[in-house]
Amino acid sequence: MRRIALVSVAVTAVAGVAAYMGSASGQSNGDAAPIYGIKIPEGYRDWRLISVKQLTGKQLTGAGGELKQLRAQLGNDLAIKAFRDGTLPFPDGAIIAALHWNEASSDFDNQALAAGFPGLGLQSSFAGSAVNVQFMVKDSKKYAASGGWGFADFTNGKPGNEALHAKCFSCHQPAKDRDYVFTHYAPTP
Amino acid sequence: MRRIALVSVAVTAVAGVAAYMGSASGQSNGDAAPIYGIKIPEGYRDWRLISVKQLTGKQLTGAGGELKQLRAQLGNDLAIKAFRDGTLPFPDGAIIAALHWNEASSDFDNQALAAGFPGLGLQSSFAGSAVNVQFMVKDSKKYAASGGWGFADFTNGKPGNEALHAKCFSCHQPAKDRDYVFTHYAPTP
Repeated sequence: MRRIALVSVAVTAVAGVAAYMGSASGQSNGDAAPIYGIKIPEGYRDWRLISVKQLTGKQLTGAGGELKQLRAQLGNDLAIKAFRDGTLPFPDGAIIAALHWNEASSDFDNQALAAGFPGLGLQSSFAGSAVNVQFMVKDSKKYAASGGWGFADFTNGKPGNEALHAKCFSCHQPAKDRDYVFTHYAPTP
Repeated sequence: MRRIALVSVAVTAVAGVAAYMGSASGQSNGDAAPIYGIKIPEGYRDWRLISVKQLTGKQLTGAGGELKQLRAQLGNDLAIKAFRDGTLPFPDGAIIAALHWNEASSDFDNQALAAGFPGLGLQSSFAGSAVNVQFMVKDSKKYAASGGWGFADFTNGKPGNEALHAKCFSCHQPAKDRDYVFTHYAPTP
């Protein structure tokens, strides 16, 4: 589950960023992710939107259960500016956060859709329980061995293990021409 | 299509908000939506994230085509604070924006997923072309006849017609106990 959650993601807090507990805008227990030494950046939940995604498939754990997640990618100011300007590679200091939720639905919402738009079979789903959050932190010197990016993955504020983090960079290799970032900036409607 | 796009939404810009063209953070041609007199609020693309959704169903127009959208709800500062604090009704001045995109996928992304996580059948989709943006604007006096909310829907910066906007409030009636807002605040992972 954690490994899957790492897939499509993004950046993290530079180690040393002040951590705090229980804020609505981002939380951390202060533990740094292995390999890259990255902590959860304070207030990341307040960052601006890059794009949204859905991920479906089979769960890594559990007896064949289905995985269905809704995801949002947020960026700090440097990351947002780089996406909008089309700047590659991303500048040092850019951080991308990927927030992953279990996809949920409600009869209440779907009944309202059926009443408002009969015959269309509309179904809505939304971000349910939190799964994990991942970060990509750009530091071309510190993380020179991994394309200039540090990676981190947290579940309930706790970083994943070293085996998990050892996989991040190799999975992002196919996006080398986009500075290892899969996510595109969603157009402004 | 426009009618469907209105479904799950949220608030808008108070009429009179300065409009501008072509910014990466929100654009407007200055036209106000009918009935409620709402313009696109400047810079709404910079607002903070409330939640994300998916909407599937049949297209309203076209020969039986499938509708598949990814959506994000953003809020201005008053709206975000109200969501986090659980404040109901929402305070005057709160604005919720709903950004709707056609759901897209790429072989590139899915091949990277297959290589990184073989055997799991992972499939990713993301926000593709923009469909429309909708707003709910709270003004308990001005919009007293519609639960204190004004509604607006824009496609390519142009407001939808009066028939479209006449439907907004009735579709939101089922959510009366939540101040006519279907969207819940997504938890911070």
